[in-house]
Formats: sequence, C-alpha cells, structure tokens
Amino acid sequence: MIPGDGIGQEVVAQGLKVLNAVLPADVKLETKEYDLGARRWHRTGETLPDAELDALKTHDAILLGAIGDPSVPSGVLERGLLLKLRFAFDHFINLRPSKLFPNTATPLAGRPDIDFVVVREGTEGPYTGNGGSLRTGTPAEVATEVSVNTAYGVERVVRDAFARAQARPRKKLTLVHKNNVLVFAGHLWKNIFDTVAKEYPDVTTDYLHVDAATIFFVTQPERFDVIVTDNLFGDILTDLAAAVTGGIGLAASGNINPTGAFPSMFEPVHGSAPDIAGQGKADPTATVLSVALLLRHLGYESEAARIEDAVQADLAARDGSARTTDEIGDALAVRVSG
Amino acid sequence: MIPGDGIGQEVVAQGLKVLNAVLPADVKLETKEYDLGARRWHRTGETLPDAELDALKTHDAILLGAIGDPSVPSGVLERGLLLKLRFAFDHFINLRPSKLFPNTATPLAGRPDIDFVVVREGTEGPYTGNGGSLRTGTPAEVATEVSVNTAYGVERVVRDAFARAQARPRKKLTLVHKNNVLVFAGHLWKNIFDTVAKEYPDVTTDYLHVDAATIFFVTQPERFDVIVTDNLFGDILTDLAAAVTGGIGLAASGNINPTGAFPSMFEPVHGSAPDIAGQGKADPTATVLSVALLLRHLGYESEAARIEDAVQADLAARDGSARTTDEIGDALAVRVSG
Ligand SMILES: CC(C)[C@H](C(=O)O)[C@@H](O)C(=O)O
Ligand SMILES: CC(C)[C@H](C(=O)O)[C@@H](O)C(=O)O
Repeated sequence: MIPGDGIGQEVVAQGLKVLNAVLPADVKLETKEYDLGARRWHRTGETLPDAELDALKTHDAILLGAIGDPSVPSGVLERGLLLKLRFAFDHFINLRPSKLFPNTATPLAGRPDIDFVVVREGTEGPYTGNGGSLRTGTPAEVATEVSVNTAYGVERVVRDAFARAQARPRKKLTLVHKNNVLVFAGHLWKNIFDTVAKEYPDVTTDYLHVDAATIFFVTQPERFDVIVTDNLFGDILTDLAAAVTGGIGLAASGNINPTGAFPSMFEPVHGSAPDIAGQGKADPTATVLSVALLLRHLGYESEAARIEDAVQADLAARDGSARTTDEIGDALAVRVSG
Repeated sequence: MIPGDGIGQEVVAQGLKVLNAVLPADVKLETKEYDLGARRWHRTGETLPDAELDALKTHDAILLGAIGDPSVPSGVLERGLLLKLRFAFDHFINLRPSKLFPNTATPLAGRPDIDFVVVREGTEGPYTGNGGSLRTGTPAEVATEVSVNTAYGVERVVRDAFARAQARPRKKLTLVHKNNVLVFAGHLWKNIFDTVAKEYPDVTTDYLHVDAATIFFVTQPERFDVIVTDNLFGDILTDLAAAVTGGIGLAASGNINPTGAFPSMFEPVHGSAPDIAGQGKADPTATVLSVALLLRHLGYESEAARIEDAVQADLAARDGSARTTDEIGDALAVRVSG
C-alpha cells in the first residue's frame, strides 16, 4: 500500500477494510505500507529510492491512494514516483472502466446507458519523459516533448484490448488517436490495430480522432464498449469519462502488467484533493472499486464481483444524506461480507 | 473562399450570402474561389501548390468550408492543405468562442450558462510535423511525434489571451496544459503565463491540467471565461466545448494572424461530413458565425454583431422543424439586412 498524499490515506484505509471483509477466511492477507509522497519528499528529498522500488517488486499487487500536493513543484512526484512506478513495473495496460451506476449524478441530460472500458497504453507516448528545454528561461527558449511509440508497445496493448472486447457481450473496440495530424504515431497505431483486427473477426472495430471522441463521450457515450488509446489521450478521455459517469469519486483504475513480471498497481483516478483531506469527506468508492480490479487481476473473480455488486447496491441505496469516508467504507464492508 | 469538401461547399455559399447581405452598400466585396481539397487532389495530386499559396496571400481574409474525404488517406489534406495554410500564414491565434445560445440542445442537464472563448495556439506544439518513423511497418518500428514549443510562440499567444480576457466583463484567464507530465513544455507555458500575468493585475488567472479541464467542461462550464492552451489540447477542448454548447453545427473559429502580415482564415470547427453532403442538411450557422469573426477581424464590428444577433434570434425562433441549409442561410440573410 502506498496511501500517498491528502485523501489518499483515508481512502486506502477503506479499501483495505473492504478487502479484509471480502477475502475468504483461508486467504491470509499480508500488507505493508510504504511512506512515499509529499511528506516523504519534504522530509528527505526522496521520491522513490531504489531500495523501496526493489521492495515493492516483491509484492503481489500495489494499492495506491493518491500522489501530489501543492507544496511540491508540479512534476516532481508525478514523474519521480507515480510514473516511475508505472514505467519501472512496465504497466502497459492502464485499465479504466466507466459505468454509470444507478442513483449517481451525471451531468448529462437523459442519463444515457454508459458501460465502457478504456484500455490506455501506460508506458509510451508523450509520457516517456523524452524532450528537453534549450536556453531555458530566456526569450529564445525552445522546449520539446517527444511522444515515443513502438510497434512492440502498441501491439501488446492493442492485443490486450481486442481480447477484452471479445470477452464482452457487445464485442466492440474503438481505436482513438489523432492520425490525421500525428501521422507517424497515428499510422503505427492504425496499422497495428488493423492487422490485429484480422485475428478477431467477431470484434466490431471503429476509429475516432480524439477530438471527435470527446464529442461522443457527451452526446452518445452508449456507443462505446472498449476503447484503446495512447497514454495522453487515455489520460484525458478517462477524466472526461469519470465526469460523465457520476464523477471522479467513483472512477477506478489498474496499472497492469499482464505478464506478471512485476506487480500491478491499482489506484483511484482521482487526485489527493488537499482541500478536503483529513475531514472524512472523501468518497472511498473509487478505491474500493480499484480493490475489485486488484482482486480480479489476482484471480479472485467472485470476490471482485461481490465488491462491485456491493458498490452498486450501496449507490442504489444512497438517499443524498452525507456519509463520512469511514461510514461508506463500513457500509461496503458489511455488504461484501453479508 | 476555399469551400473544400463535402458540406464545405454548401455552408460557404450561405456564409457568402449572409456576408453580402450584411455589408453596407458602399463596401465592395470581391471574392475568389479556390478549388482545393479532395477533388483537386484526386484530379492532380496537388494539395496546395505554391502558386495558389502566393495568390491566397493577396486577399484580406479567407473563408474555408471543410477539408477532408474518406477517399483520401488520413493526413494528406490535413497536413498538406489545412495545416499548411495555418503554418504558412502564421495563424498563431486559433480563436474558438463557445456560447450556449437559447433554444439549442445541449447534452448537459440543467443548461449551465456557457460563454467562454478558447485561444488555441496554432503554429506549434505537436502540430509541427516534427517526428518520424524508423523501420516502418516492421515489428521493430519506432514512431515519434515531437511537440515543439518556443518562448516566442508561447508568449505571443499568451499575450493575446490576456488582452482578450481583459477586454471581457469577467476578466478571467485559465491556462490549460499538462505540466505535471509534459514538464519541459509545461513549465515554459506556465512561466510565461505567470510573467505576463504581472502586467495584467486586473485579470484573474487560473491553471488546470487538461484532463481536469475536461471534467469542468461538463460539470461547471460556467467557470470559464478565456482559456489559453496549446495546439493539441485546444483541438480536443474545442470539440468538447462545441458538443456542450449545442453541437459542432454552431462552432465557429478563426485562424488569426493579428500582425496582418498574412490573411487570417475563418472556418467552422466541423468537418466535411461526407455522409450528409449535397443533401441540403448541413447547418450553415457555424460558417455564418465564422463570417462574423472574419468581419470583426477586419474591423467591421457592427456587422459582426449584427450577424451574431441574427443567429441568436434565429435559434430562439427555431421550432424544431427541419430547414434546409439554404433556408437557414436565407433566414439569416434576411435578419442581418432587416
Ligand atoms: C497524476 C498524473 C501524472 C496522472 C496521469 O497523467 O497519468 C493522472 O492524471 C492519472 O490519470 O492517473
Ligand atoms: C482537421 C484537423 C487537422 C483539425 C485540427 O486538428 O486542428 C481540426 O480537428 C480542427 O480542430 O480544426
């Protein structure tokens, strides 16, 4: 567990509570907490020392709360801790399901039926840290960011997405990119997508430019089943997806390495929300749903489903009265053990 | 005029109709039509020959319909014609206002009050065409896209955005980037933004990551006044903005070179919509609103305002019955001359 900053602490505690409640008695859960994030950085200047990276490698999975605080310069913890973990553990599948649960507030009129999953590439694209800045801080500065895309990296995420689409009832996969402008990366993605598609004749495929995709997210989100996309487009689309499906308080994610070579890492999509930290106001549901993804990844399918059913039931029963972080965690723990 | 492809032809005709109707009798309008786009490319293989680029330079302004057809490989016309014009004429301000007019269908519940303008950088970022592909088509392919950002390019668009924000009642400017990941470009943008802000103490400033910005576009769009952002983020955000403000059929844009060194170019945000082309189904309103931006750019403020008022009145009077492209153009022409 890396509770991290702000509400990260509070929501991870609830995730652990529900995890304990859902696990069969004969499964012994061992957890270890890593003190990483803003406080650690202020104390020691460290973001993720090698010793801790090595120690983290020995676990079956990682549950992360949230990383980031306004007191730390932008980029330090994101690049030095969160992205470092995603890259070091080769989390090439960044899995982000979006479902509009009953009784949740969507900003969309008419409550469309939303149930899709974004398979976001997690180890390439503009996230590689390639780039630089010349004559920094002068009127002649040039700053570059390089999006790096490889056939190796694109093919493995595209294959994963096709397999996921095939396993779902609607069997539909949409590639999102911007291949009319980013022609080099875009053509690589499109060519691999079209090639792999031939092996999945029962999967219906579709291509959308990222700008057009945002339109459909608000006008016709029910058209999506599985979406596969690049790291940056996936970042943007999944925040939008969270917003239209009841808010970032419900959005779960998994940074997955399907080969098992390294532990996968599960985290709510939301940030550390320093403005409400420590007040028991955070909704731990996104973290609890991330625990479900964690369990599914480790083969505990029925436990994962029990958590998802519990969340569904809890949301359906909400009457609008405020509950604390702890109360929501308790309610979910009761439901999964019931 | 570059009517271009698909519905481009039809909507530009209406734009011209309204332009003729709104201009005072003593203003002599001279127009020339350029045959560029998919048909031209199929016929001659040309996208934008130098002779035509030179000829286009001699005009006061350009009105463009839409570029693109599924029969042309993705990227050919976008890079070879549309972006070539934006880059050759140094259109560093890509101006995209978003306003939720009365009586228009927004997918958002509760009809928030939306009236903001996105100042999108138009000549840098990931749009420069820098990048390439190595071992193309093999399993060892590497494809890169380089986002190029200069202090020169960022400062001029940031200054323009501050001036626009200062001229509006709310005087609020939001910078959108992703400086926690794209640290080189992000810090350049943020530093210049913060430096220029000191010269505009009456403008309230704000920073949002692009992913968070998409959330606010659907949950709280009324919080925005002026937004300044990079070329790619601006592309994505303005399609989303169009979607929440009644659809891409109403979204106007200007590719502006404020120095006057080259003609500015005005175009609807929508594409060529080949599926409805030639059927009189396209809504020409976005093009007509782009004509208003064109007039304002050339100093015809009262004519621009007359067009915007006409659109507002036309939308308010819509009763849901279908009108042809031509009928909408006629109605607007009558209103502006009335
Ligand atoms: C915090 C940030 C680095 C991260 C990202 O951009 O991936 C976040 O936005 C996310 O989506 O998990
Ligand atoms: C057609 C395409 C090149 C263009 C862009 O990406 O700028 C369009 O999406 C736009 O927003 O004007």
